[in-house]
Amino acid sequence: GRKIGSKFHQHLRYNPLRDSWVLVSAHRMKRPWAGQVERPPEEHIPRYDPNNPLCPGNKRANGKGNPDYDSTFVFENDFPALQPDAPDPGSDQDPLFQSKAARGVCKVMCFHPWSDVTLPLMKKEEVVNVIDKWAELVEELGTIYPWVQIFENKGAMMGCSNPHPHCQVWASNFLPNEPALSDRCQRAYYEKHGEPMLLQYAKREAEKKERVVVESSDWLAVVPYWATWPYQTLLLPRRHVLRISDLTTEEREGLAAIMKRLLTKYDNLFEVSFPYSMGWHGAPTGPYLKEDNSHWQLHAHYYPPLLRSATVKKFMVGYEMLAQEQRDLTPEQAAEKLRNLPEEHYKTR
Amino acid sequence: GRKIGSKFHQHLRYNPLRDSWVLVSAHRMKRPWAGQVERPPEEHIPRYDPNNPLCPGNKRANGKGNPDYDSTFVFENDFPALQPDAPDPGSDQDPLFQSKAARGVCKVMCFHPWSDVTLPLMKKEEVVNVIDKWAELVEELGTIYPWVQIFENKGAMMGCSNPHPHCQVWASNFLPNEPALSDRCQRAYYEKHGEPMLLQYAKREAEKKERVVVESSDWLAVVPYWATWPYQTLLLPRRHVLRISDLTTEEREGLAAIMKRLLTKYDNLFEVSFPYSMGWHGAPTGPYLKEDNSHWQLHAHYYPPLLRSATVKKFMVGYEMLAQEQRDLTPEQAAEKLRNLPEEHYKTR
Ligand SMILES: O=P(O)(O)O[C@H]1O[C@H](CO)[C@@H](O)[C@H](O)[C@H]1O
Ligand SMILES: O=P(O)(O)O[C@H]1O[C@H](CO)[C@@H](O)[C@H](O)[C@H]1O
Repeated sequence: GRKIGSKFHQHLRYNPLRDSWVLVSAHRMKRPWAGQVERPPEEHIPRYDPNNPLCPGNKRANGKGNPDYDSTFVFENDFPALQPDAPDPGSDQDPLFQSKAARGVCKVMCFHPWSDVTLPLMKKEEVVNVIDKWAELVEELGTIYPWVQIFENKGAMMGCSNPHPHCQVWASNFLPNEPALSDRCQRAYYEKHGEPMLLQYAKREAEKKERVVVESSDWLAVVPYWATWPYQTLLLPRRHVLRISDLTTEEREGLAAIMKRLLTKYDNLFEVSFPYSMGWHGAPTGPYLKEDNSHWQLHAHYYPPLLRSATVKKFMVGYEMLAQEQRDLTPEQAAEKLRNLPEEHYKTR
Repeated sequence: GRKIGSKFHQHLRYNPLRDSWVLVSAHRMKRPWAGQVERPPEEHIPRYDPNNPLCPGNKRANGKGNPDYDSTFVFENDFPALQPDAPDPGSDQDPLFQSKAARGVCKVMCFHPWSDVTLPLMKKEEVVNVIDKWAELVEELGTIYPWVQIFENKGAMMGCSNPHPHCQVWASNFLPNEPALSDRCQRAYYEKHGEPMLLQYAKREAEKKERVVVESSDWLAVVPYWATWPYQTLLLPRRHVLRISDLTTEEREGLAAIMKRLLTKYDNLFEVSFPYSMGWHGAPTGPYLKEDNSHWQLHAHYYPPLLRSATVKKFMVGYEMLAQEQRDLTPEQAAEKLRNLPEEHYKTR
């Protein structure tokens, strides 16, 4: 039948969070790969390195010393892309040469005092500490700034230049492109359907099951129907939650548990510390705190680059940059692979 | 003054072709780089390799043999992402699970019979042959398909899996995201200002000079005001031209000459065969041929990944994927560097 054939033939899928389409060409996994092979991630990282500026007690580039921290540790990025006091560029009025002031702060957050652990290998309580700190930062920076972006670049392949487990938090005086688009899409859906888009989506996916990777009573991780990266996932609560700071104690514990499960599966896929960029999207803050944000649902995006093995990634290049994103296996195939992997980490088995 | 300070402090710039913003944080070039170092591109490629499926006379994956071509050579991609006969996926009606049929063709085009040349090292007449073939393919595939995407992934860093000089041409029965967005933006500008956006832009840049890399009587290459990649350029004709197939003989010769100059500067920047993804955007075709496309102006985008050296690229990762694109030097700094480089190729000096 036409409908059955569809999954294995190329087709387009709609991303309702970005109002765009992705080209799904499942048959492309068959082509042989003669292109670039990445260096596998470093597997032997010392627990403490006297030269690593992120380790407890060490000196950083600006000469400041880290405390002897034993949980999470947050500090200001020594080379921030956003600073609180940048001057206004003054606008040219010409519609082709428009500029605006950009102000903000960039923070770095170490997850753990040890360099040789990652989130899936940390204790659940330690991951809860990370979540609590995320919530605290969103609350604190969100009093002023409209957008607080929590993100983690994991692995050298994703531009991470320090093996110590850490993420970054960049707060800005503007709503960046991606959240602005997501806000617009979620709002339009809410106005039309009377329920938050991602809340409805989570319900449907929990029923359909075919794209579910891991689930618990209050959380769900799926390879979204519109995933662009091969093993991309969307992690979200089942209850209507606007921001990470709104999560209850139980939900934070549930989140720590499901993050450990999801990230363990990621690592088990190619038996390697799985590279990715991830980040949280929740309702905007600052001036938006006074507005109705019912259309929003808190969620995290995981964008991992690997496609075929620990050393062969998906290149989002020519066609993807100039025309449209394209994927080489179906989201259902990716979800099934991840779902069937063991929940015990390959390093501790 | 505030205005003078702006260039060296972070600020946002507006991209009128994509209706989005880029964060410019020039001071970030100062930070030390301890992250991933790429393998430099292979510099010793044999002119003819009996095992390379793109060389003249050789067999390809599907068993077909290449002719003994001595100019350009076009064939159907052996592992196409788009095929002409994919079935209709049949739609689910649910706004969260929308799919559409995707049909098309994928072609590969070799630029030259030799594997050890690239466009800047080819003779001008040979580059004209490439341009003529591009025009021919747009005309031919454009009779049916609304979009014909010509693109080149150059270098292993950009996902290119074969060192033989070549590009790809993917035609589709749909207008992909990027051209759809660009069409919308150009149309809105045209309706408001009565002149094509990019024609006005080219005029302003030719006057302003600070972002010009190379120019001739009928072509202009600039680092656009809103560039996201460090050395991104925009190449466009000075006359109002809708599609590559509309270029006159003189304009094709002028294009070959300016492409050679631009790409020579790229190679000279780090004295390496400069990786990039590039592609052409012109007015849509197929059913759009009957419509008024005066808002369109033909142009090529070059997206090169290198930032600091032949082996250190810009990572468009966490913040860029989740929030907004960010660059570490100003477009004016990048243009000045490229402009001041010699026009003689480092390999033939
Ligand atoms: O078709 P190629 O050259 O094998 O593949 C390359 O270009 C394609 C189109 O941009 C991408 O989808 C692939 O990820 C990339 O490796
Ligand atoms: O801040 P880091 O970790 O040095 O830098 C990394 O993340 C940033 C934010 O995504 C990117 O702009 C950089 O290109 C990347 O190398």
